[in-house]
Amino acid sequence: MASLLRATTWGLCPWRGYCSKGTQGALSEGFVAALKAVVGPPQVSMAAAVREQHGQDESMHRCQPPDAVVWPQNVDQVCRLAALCYCQGVPIIPFGTGTGLEGGVCAVQGGVCINLTHMDRIVELNPEDFSVVVEPGVTRKALNTHLWDSGLWFPVDPGADASLCGMAATGASGTNAVRYGTMRENVLNLEVVLPDGRLLHTAGPGRHFRKSAAGYNLTGLFVGSEGTLGLITATTLRLHPAPEATVAATCAFPSVQAAVDSTVHILQAAVPVARIEFLDDVMMDACNRHNKLNYSVAPTLFLEFHGSEQALAEQLRRAEEITQHNGAFHFFWAKEAEERSRLWTVRHNAWYAVLALRPGCKGYSTDVCVPISRLPEILVQTKEDLKASGLTGAIVGHVGDGNFHCILLVDPEDPEELHRVEAFAQQLGRQALALHGTCTGEHGIGLGKRQLLQEEVGAVGVETMRQLKAMLDPRGLMNPGKVL
Amino acid sequence: MASLLRATTWGLCPWRGYCSKGTQGALSEGFVAALKAVVGPPQVSMAAAVREQHGQDESMHRCQPPDAVVWPQNVDQVCRLAALCYCQGVPIIPFGTGTGLEGGVCAVQGGVCINLTHMDRIVELNPEDFSVVVEPGVTRKALNTHLWDSGLWFPVDPGADASLCGMAATGASGTNAVRYGTMRENVLNLEVVLPDGRLLHTAGPGRHFRKSAAGYNLTGLFVGSEGTLGLITATTLRLHPAPEATVAATCAFPSVQAAVDSTVHILQAAVPVARIEFLDDVMMDACNRHNKLNYSVAPTLFLEFHGSEQALAEQLRRAEEITQHNGAFHFFWAKEAEERSRLWTVRHNAWYAVLALRPGCKGYSTDVCVPISRLPEILVQTKEDLKASGLTGAIVGHVGDGNFHCILLVDPEDPEELHRVEAFAQQLGRQALALHGTCTGEHGIGLGKRQLLQEEVGAVGVETMRQLKAMLDPRGLMNPGKVL
Repeated sequence: MASLLRATTWGLCPWRGYCSKGTQGALSEGFVAALKAVVGPPQVSMAAAVREQHGQDESMHRCQPPDAVVWPQNVDQVCRLAALCYCQGVPIIPFGTGTGLEGGVCAVQGGVCINLTHMDRIVELNPEDFSVVVEPGVTRKALNTHLWDSGLWFPVDPGADASLCGMAATGASGTNAVRYGTMRENVLNLEVVLPDGRLLHTAGPGRHFRKSAAGYNLTGLFVGSEGTLGLITATTLRLHPAPEATVAATCAFPSVQAAVDSTVHILQAAVPVARIEFLDDVMMDACNRHNKLNYSVAPTLFLEFHGSEQALAEQLRRAEEITQHNGAFHFFWAKEAEERSRLWTVRHNAWYAVLALRPGCKGYSTDVCVPISRLPEILVQTKEDLKASGLTGAIVGHVGDGNFHCILLVDPEDPEELHRVEAFAQQLGRQALALHGTCTGEHGIGLGKRQLLQEEVGAVGVETMRQLKAMLDPRGLMNPGKVL
Repeated sequence: MASLLRATTWGLCPWRGYCSKGTQGALSEGFVAALKAVVGPPQVSMAAAVREQHGQDESMHRCQPPDAVVWPQNVDQVCRLAALCYCQGVPIIPFGTGTGLEGGVCAVQGGVCINLTHMDRIVELNPEDFSVVVEPGVTRKALNTHLWDSGLWFPVDPGADASLCGMAATGASGTNAVRYGTMRENVLNLEVVLPDGRLLHTAGPGRHFRKSAAGYNLTGLFVGSEGTLGLITATTLRLHPAPEATVAATCAFPSVQAAVDSTVHILQAAVPVARIEFLDDVMMDACNRHNKLNYSVAPTLFLEFHGSEQALAEQLRRAEEITQHNGAFHFFWAKEAEERSRLWTVRHNAWYAVLALRPGCKGYSTDVCVPISRLPEILVQTKEDLKASGLTGAIVGHVGDGNFHCILLVDPEDPEELHRVEAFAQQLGRQALALHGTCTGEHGIGLGKRQLLQEEVGAVGVETMRQLKAMLDPRGLMNPGKVL
């Protein structure tokens, strides 16, 4: 058994061949052999390149590679891996598509990265019940491709083609949330491997009802837990009828206030808008340059409506009336797929348009969410702060939810600028908190917002979260150093 | 201090004057004096009639009165009461309107019932943010009356004019859930007094954003916890735009299957139906007799649509097409308030219509929820089981969610019949579980469904729930004997 023990310091490392820059600890030969016995030798890697690829997401958080990467093929293997790590005190970092934005996969204490993407079955589709069960390797685009002929779709769309189980773990949302809700509202059940290897079905095994009042809401507890309480190995999702028809529209405004007022009025009028996205003047300018377009360089809304032909005509008419009442100009809309795609290109390419403002820089996207009425105030303030900071940044937001992103550019070779970007993100989070908002609407806490979380939920809130963590993960092995 | 100690057995009771039938324990004089010191002497009662009134809800569970009833006036007093009970080991039972259906307020271990209805402020309305903060004394009807001129409303409607904080505690839903969601989707934040008297704001103090990815979802954990984890002293709710216009409709079907198929097809066609209620032939017969009407004695749907005039016309046309395609007959609809009210009278009076079938009997409503595709199967089976059991019962359901109630009649003087009713409810719960459903869609677990909960979520699920309970209520004082 001694050979199975984890060597927690460099000095104890019995097998140094793989130990490259950034590794926090190392694993004993016996432990690695035990991993291989569970998943088969080809499904365990300690190659530096593989570990580094798994030690970072799409954020600015520096790469912190795990000690090993393992690809289980089924839930039974995940249970055995978890039990093995639990027994040996080795940290576990669950890994999906690596498209997170708050450093959620950084192996701050080393350990084993469990890459779940080989488990990629669409386990069960129940069209009449509007539900589907998917494994972690299924991304949202893969699911929607699979659903193509069913008349159903899964609308939660964070932009990236993320793993649906990863989206559940992060509590993701995105552009369609204003109408269809976030992952919190669309996850019906989760299969979770607990840190000690036991298997939990949060709503009971195989269950996929629309609602329940049976006991504590375990599903809700694991959605958004960022891999810190267990490994999500399957998720049951609520599906929606695919839109019969779709119309996209855009219009520009004389001020941020006018764009936000339009949003509130559209929601108050119960126009069931599917997407309502805000882009500031800097973002529009960047988009024009990048896409060779000539949209007005002004606060702009991009909208999308789903429904029958007749319903769409009415939604569009109402939205146009409301936006024009608020001073909108250049209202135009598109119905055919190609036209719509062209119109939304601006929004979809926003990230790359900002990157093109300073070639060679990396982008960093931070997000906050405030009560909608406070949006104009915080957007105006953010633009002023951006100017004062000397940073290059642009704003894009899911304005119907009060949620927006500030995409900041940073020269990766300039630590001072990176520091300024981090300080700016913290300041923005604090401003959102001061306006009764949250420091993150959809990216999660990860590594970057742990201090902000404490300020957001207060001492009793943090203490309660700590108790939850200690209860479900008593050895502190699940994605350590994240959230709390 | 000795006089403050709780006398946990009859023999130790220092003040027996109030000890009536059903009391489980008693409180020391000193402890009662301490309660009075917190809330003032008139806000503490140990009168038998008051205690009995607080020892039962609207279910068949026998009255189990608390040892005292206390009416705090503000959250500070609730904190002090909780701390006092915690310190002395006295159980606490939170009490709202007492309209629960699973014995949630029965004081199975005696203790102090904290009646929160004197805290009845609508604390803060934010129309632009579609949110409101209410105290426990505010009922859903009172809130909607307050919102009358705002263009907003709160749609969750379980039937009873329940306390909104109580509805949060139970995870209530009802007729509008198919479109607007349940309490789980409509609670944005909770103020909770923890068992030891500490104050928790589940989403942070004063916060009322639409969505968040910040840390563990504490709000979701307390929604549906049935008073077993803490006392909800305020809830922040998501409001919705009041419908511009409303149309009600009804139609009868040749079979249960045809009614359910229609429901699935209406949902698949993305008709945003606001209510879709199923009544079986027995229920329709009872309603005809009770209301002197002549609806077809057949499986029937009652529907309601919300939207603009134009949208309603289309929704109605589609619903009529779909139901007729499934063999519906007698489709008719009503637009004016009075007509609608007449049409829905049948549904709203369903409970009383069933009671009138056997005067002198009490009604008992049990609920389950299954995947919609399994509804025909379980409804047909339930009707057969009802016949076989010799019980009188009728079925009404929120069919769009797969949720239905069986309203059973029982002679309160006939313990054998009561036993049969209880056995029938257990059997129905097990049938729902066998079809991947839940033993309760909206009534909660309370006293009656604890065994079913274990079967529903399995050993690991129950163990996790037990750990949660032990973590948040280590002395086991919050509404003991419920849920687990």
